[in-house]
Amino acid sequence: MIPTITSLQNLRVKQAVKLRERKARDEQQRIIIDGEREITRALGAGVVALELFVLDGVELSATSQQTMRHARESGATILPVSRQVMEKLAFGDRVEEVILVAESPSPALDTFLQDKLAAKRDLLVAVVEGVEKPGNLGAILRSADAAGIDGVIVCGARLDLYNPNAIRASLGALFTLPVIGMTVPQALAWLRMHQFQMLATRVDGAIDYTTADLRGRTAIILGSEAEGLSREWLGDDIRAISLPMLGTVDSLNLSVTAAILFYEALRQRRAK
Amino acid sequence: MIPTITSLQNLRVKQAVKLRERKARDEQQRIIIDGEREITRALGAGVVALELFVLDGVELSATSQQTMRHARESGATILPVSRQVMEKLAFGDRVEEVILVAESPSPALDTFLQDKLAAKRDLLVAVVEGVEKPGNLGAILRSADAAGIDGVIVCGARLDLYNPNAIRASLGALFTLPVIGMTVPQALAWLRMHQFQMLATRVDGAIDYTTADLRGRTAIILGSEAEGLSREWLGDDIRAISLPMLGTVDSLNLSVTAAILFYEALRQRRAK
Repeated sequence: MIPTITSLQNLRVKQAVKLRERKARDEQQRIIIDGEREITRALGAGVVALELFVLDGVELSATSQQTMRHARESGATILPVSRQVMEKLAFGDRVEEVILVAESPSPALDTFLQDKLAAKRDLLVAVVEGVEKPGNLGAILRSADAAGIDGVIVCGARLDLYNPNAIRASLGALFTLPVIGMTVPQALAWLRMHQFQMLATRVDGAIDYTTADLRGRTAIILGSEAEGLSREWLGDDIRAISLPMLGTVDSLNLSVTAAILFYEALRQRRAK
Repeated sequence: MIPTITSLQNLRVKQAVKLRERKARDEQQRIIIDGEREITRALGAGVVALELFVLDGVELSATSQQTMRHARESGATILPVSRQVMEKLAFGDRVEEVILVAESPSPALDTFLQDKLAAKRDLLVAVVEGVEKPGNLGAILRSADAAGIDGVIVCGARLDLYNPNAIRASLGALFTLPVIGMTVPQALAWLRMHQFQMLATRVDGAIDYTTADLRGRTAIILGSEAEGLSREWLGDDIRAISLPMLGTVDSLNLSVTAAILFYEALRQRRAK
C-alpha cells in the first residue's frame, strides 16, 4: 500500500497538475482525465492508464470504486491523496474522488477507419476546422457519438485535442469515438482518395441541408462560428449546404448546427 | 449635453450595476442589456429604453452610433461615462461601448399569441421547464428563433427570464421572439384550451421524434438535463417522444436536443 500523498510538492502531483497546460501534455505525452464517467469511457476505449489519484479518507462512491478496480487492472498505479492535494489536482472548483493520468492516445490514420472503410460503404464522418474552444469541440463530439457518426476529423493549427475541457464537454466521447487530428490538405486528400461526398456547411450554402442526400459515404464539414471554413474547402467536388434561418438572429451555435446535420443524416439513413 | 459620469459612486451607475442581480431586476422592474446587437434587437422589439450608457472619449463604432440614435429616438437618456465607469457597468471582462437599461418587458398571455392563434392553425411553440442556467435558456431561444418557432413558454419556480447571461446567449432573440413565463398548470391549461398536440421529450419516450407528425398545432415540451420533465407532464393527452442515441454517451445537451426537434418540425412543415 502506497502511503497517502499529502504534500503539494510531491513530484507526481506537480507533474500531473502541469498536464492542465497543453505544453506539458505535448512534452510528457500524457493527458489528465477528470470524472469517473470520463475515466471509465477512456479505459473502456483502451487508453493506457498510468496513475490514478484517489481521494483518501472518504468512503468512495460505487462508481469510483469500480473506476479504481478498472484502472488497477489496466496497470495504473493507484495513488491515495489528501483532500488538499486532490483540490490542487482537480479542475476548477470541482471536488473529484478520482483523477487519471494516461498516455496520450495516438490514433493513426491507417487504423482509424481502415476496418470501417472495408466493411461499411456508407461511412459518415464529420470534419471540424478551426474550432478553438475545447468546450465547443467536446460538445460536437458528444452529439456525434449520440448520432452514430463513424469518425471525426479535427483540422486546425492550434489543435489541442485532449484539453481537459474538451474531454469534459464530450462526456468521454473523445475516447470512444474515432477522433483524429490532421491538416486540411491531409483531410482533403484522404476524403478524395476514399471517394467521400463532401458537404461544406456555409451560411450562404446554396443547398438546403434537407434536400442533400446524406445517405452515401459522406463527410459533413464544419468551420468555426467566427471564421467559417477556409478557402481550401472550395473545390469543384465540394458542395455547400446551409440550414434555413427564419428569425432575426442570423446564425446558429456551431455545436447546434453540427447536431442538426448529424441527426438529419441519421434520419435519412434510417428512413425506409 | 450631460457631463461625462466619472464617479463609480454615481447613483445611476450604482442602480444599473445592481441590475446584474435578479433581486434588483425584480424590485426596480428594470433590466440591463449588453452588446450593440442585443440592444438593437431589444429596441426593435419595442422594449422601453430608459438609459443608455455610452463610453466617452473614444470614436464609437458605426453600430454603436446607430444604437445611440435608436435609443435616443426611443426616449432613452444618453449618459456618457468614463472607461472606468463602463468597466464597472459591463459584464465580466468585456469592454462595451454601450449598455442599456430598459423597463422589464411584461408580455401578457392574452397578447402573446392571440393574434397568431387566430391567423395560424399550425402554431409551433416550445415549452421549457426547469432550465436554471440562463445560458442554456438563451441558447434554446437562439435556435427557436432561427427555426421559426412561434413562441416559447418558460416554466419554473426559479424563473429569471431577463438574466444578462440569457440575453447574451440568445443574441437578443429573447426580445424578438415571443417568450413568456408561466407555471406548469397555467401552461397545461393554455395548451389544452387551444388544442395543442403536446409532445413531451423524455429519454425513454416511446415515439421516435422523426415518426411523430410535427405539422399540426404542436407544443414541444423540454425539461432540464438534470431533472427531466416533472410528473405534471404525464397526462393521457401528452405523448412522450425521444431521440435515438446510438453511442456510448447516453444523453444530448438540452439546447442541442431542442434544436434538433425544432429543425425536424421545420423540415416536416416545409416538405411537400
